[in-house]
Amino acid sequence: MAERAETTKYLLPEDRIPDSWYNIAADLPVPPTAVLHPGTHAPIGPGDLAPLFPLAIIGQEVTTDRFVRIPDAVRDVYRLWRPTPLYRARRLERALELPPGVRIFYKYEGTSPAGSHKPNTAVPQAYYNREEGVERITTETGAGQWGSALAMACGLFGIELKVYMVRVSFEQKPYRRALMETWGATCVPSPSPDTHAGREILAQTPDSTGSLGIAISEAVEDAATRDDTKYALGSVLNHVLLHQTVIGQEAREQMALAEAWPDVIVGCVGGGSNFGGLTFPFIGDHLGGRGEPVRVVAVEPAACPSLTRGTYAYDFGDTGRLTPLVKMHTLGHTFVPAGIHAGGLRYHGSAPLVSLLYDQGLIEAVAVKQRPAFEAAVLFARHEGILPAPEPSHAIRVAIDEALRAKEAGDDKTILFGLCGHGHFDLAAYDRYLSGNLEDYEHPQDEIDAALAGLPTVAI
Amino acid sequence: MAERAETTKYLLPEDRIPDSWYNIAADLPVPPTAVLHPGTHAPIGPGDLAPLFPLAIIGQEVTTDRFVRIPDAVRDVYRLWRPTPLYRARRLERALELPPGVRIFYKYEGTSPAGSHKPNTAVPQAYYNREEGVERITTETGAGQWGSALAMACGLFGIELKVYMVRVSFEQKPYRRALMETWGATCVPSPSPDTHAGREILAQTPDSTGSLGIAISEAVEDAATRDDTKYALGSVLNHVLLHQTVIGQEAREQMALAEAWPDVIVGCVGGGSNFGGLTFPFIGDHLGGRGEPVRVVAVEPAACPSLTRGTYAYDFGDTGRLTPLVKMHTLGHTFVPAGIHAGGLRYHGSAPLVSLLYDQGLIEAVAVKQRPAFEAAVLFARHEGILPAPEPSHAIRVAIDEALRAKEAGDDKTILFGLCGHGHFDLAAYDRYLSGNLEDYEHPQDEIDAALAGLPTVAI
Repeated sequence: MAERAETTKYLLPEDRIPDSWYNIAADLPVPPTAVLHPGTHAPIGPGDLAPLFPLAIIGQEVTTDRFVRIPDAVRDVYRLWRPTPLYRARRLERALELPPGVRIFYKYEGTSPAGSHKPNTAVPQAYYNREEGVERITTETGAGQWGSALAMACGLFGIELKVYMVRVSFEQKPYRRALMETWGATCVPSPSPDTHAGREILAQTPDSTGSLGIAISEAVEDAATRDDTKYALGSVLNHVLLHQTVIGQEAREQMALAEAWPDVIVGCVGGGSNFGGLTFPFIGDHLGGRGEPVRVVAVEPAACPSLTRGTYAYDFGDTGRLTPLVKMHTLGHTFVPAGIHAGGLRYHGSAPLVSLLYDQGLIEAVAVKQRPAFEAAVLFARHEGILPAPEPSHAIRVAIDEALRAKEAGDDKTILFGLCGHGHFDLAAYDRYLSGNLEDYEHPQDEIDAALAGLPTVAI
Repeated sequence: MAERAETTKYLLPEDRIPDSWYNIAADLPVPPTAVLHPGTHAPIGPGDLAPLFPLAIIGQEVTTDRFVRIPDAVRDVYRLWRPTPLYRARRLERALELPPGVRIFYKYEGTSPAGSHKPNTAVPQAYYNREEGVERITTETGAGQWGSALAMACGLFGIELKVYMVRVSFEQKPYRRALMETWGATCVPSPSPDTHAGREILAQTPDSTGSLGIAISEAVEDAATRDDTKYALGSVLNHVLLHQTVIGQEAREQMALAEAWPDVIVGCVGGGSNFGGLTFPFIGDHLGGRGEPVRVVAVEPAACPSLTRGTYAYDFGDTGRLTPLVKMHTLGHTFVPAGIHAGGLRYHGSAPLVSLLYDQGLIEAVAVKQRPAFEAAVLFARHEGILPAPEPSHAIRVAIDEALRAKEAGDDKTILFGLCGHGHFDLAAYDRYLSGNLEDYEHPQDEIDAALAGLPTVAI
């Protein structure tokens, strides 16, 4: 009942958009793992990456500086939607009949023009490319969230964008493509006849439905073979997670406004950029001796459980084995997850920085099936008003479970989770859930074993 | 280029959500027109409306108090997304190469959980019903924006909701239905077998695709015939426009923060609630001797031009002639507009208060075709980042035209327009526009004449 459940929103003034991104590499107990050349397996240098990324981005990928200043022009665009709100979920708490000592907070990134956290890195990536004279960018997209965020950013900075969109999504989700095209991008189904990688696959499998791995291969090849073109990635890499730390830095300040501190932080993990963005400033405070320890839980889909059922090993980022090798928790670059609706969580690996923290025992991980995630999302929507995207619904499930366990045990607990996007683009998935037809995938072990057997052998 | 086009966003702190709604009836040069009984044509009293609306709403429909206090519980829910931002469209201004004296501002309502301005009235309507012990509400919806906003509000206040959704939309837009159901509403296609009005139409036309007029008849009948049920309307009526004045009151304060004042305010008009909500506080300031005059332009679709090509006359709100008669600019209650994508603008009449202002020469009106509206929307999205819904895209078209005319004439001009919702639900329409297949309806005069010939004869 509304009058007994006061809306509690913590807002920051515009000048509290962070001045800098926070780099957890400065506070890690062990150094970040090296990135290896896909052919020689030797550690790669800036020169190897120069065909793909602008120098500023390459510098951010390897820097150990604790803070990286955010350019004024990037903060300026951030101001279109930042700072984003942090809420206490009082109505949800009441619905769960939680005692006063069990509290749920969430940081909401759905107010950006793209409806998700992705513009936090799309904007600086477009900016640095423009600053270095790049006229054209390529990228891949699965369901379209990343492609549309980058399309918006490229539109604002006057850069041409070509998006290789996984064919099955291109055909099933024409509206996501329309969003990218409205913002000025060109979007083709992948595999496409536009690249060597695409033509090779089409020659073998003319009706290939594509995959994120194939689309990455195409976008990388396109960028590597044209002087006017660079490549942009929406997750996994260090610089992407770095850019997303605006989320956690704001959240830390907002939790202080709430005179509360999280006992546990919960975030969903696909590639890991939303998760890293929210949690790294908190984890780093502890690692750097500047703050209290905090439990951190990474939530992945049971259909793509790279942390809980994968291996910590060097692997390719793409199916075509064109990308550098990075050490990550992975299910193998040949792993094909089931078609869950949380398209943003369907990546075979987790970001190297997230994987390292997990390997060091500094974060926990849990896998959640699709139906319980949607059950939590519907409960959340009915009580908090906001309709969550399927990806953060996995985090909502775990946040609710944490709260109910604390209630059961009679413990006090403050829970913070990341609500990284709204679900206005995902109503087909809600429709399927509400009609009782949503599949509840959990990947069979033999397929995981087979994909893991295909990992590259790396001597390092 | 971003660094030469600073984001300029005017935010208000939470405590600047208005305390009261502003009622333009207190400042009109002539009294509001009476509402007539559909059978007797006698002015109706509160008792006639009591089967449909809670007493508090009936009181607001007829009050001439200048301010109506917003209940704390309603302001509390408003805090989920209010105050909403007001922007200066600097990047759009630059794209249009406007001189410094021509400025464009917009008030953005797309950050609400439903993505539009509709929750501003859905929340108080649900609240007053709950306060008076109503357990169930009925309403109609066309494309689903209103139905989903009311579903969200009813969810928050624990009220059952039944939505009669125009059958063609129900079938073509299952995702809008999924949104309503996620928030807990029941949604049936109209005409339905659940009401006498619906059964009668189905008996004559089993494959009827329905219309907003039919759906209103069904929702009204359902509410009128059940003791536990009231009816809610999302536009047209005085109390709905009253609730929406939070938009204009905030915008007035934000324009003062910008040290600017609009020479012209532009808003799209369907029923008129977004338009009235934005413009009435400004118009009322002038009418009440508290402020300078301001030009106000109502923008309607060429496919449904009730102000520019309709008649100012008493008419029914619905096809079934069940609603009271209200005096409004109307195309006749039998008018069926073409299937434009701005579903929120497809109503045969304009709100009595908007119609009265137009009749008194206090506001202007202009009709815009669908394609030029989308052309403006795409230009706006590429430069401002935010993707507009089709409805406010009509206002964007006119705001741009006003700016270009001022530039041409060498005049200074400050333009404010209402961006009442995002277009994340409307990508099918963008897809159609981008592929060159968008129809450009302008309603034929003979059909308008025929519909106007069907207006009821009212002696008053």
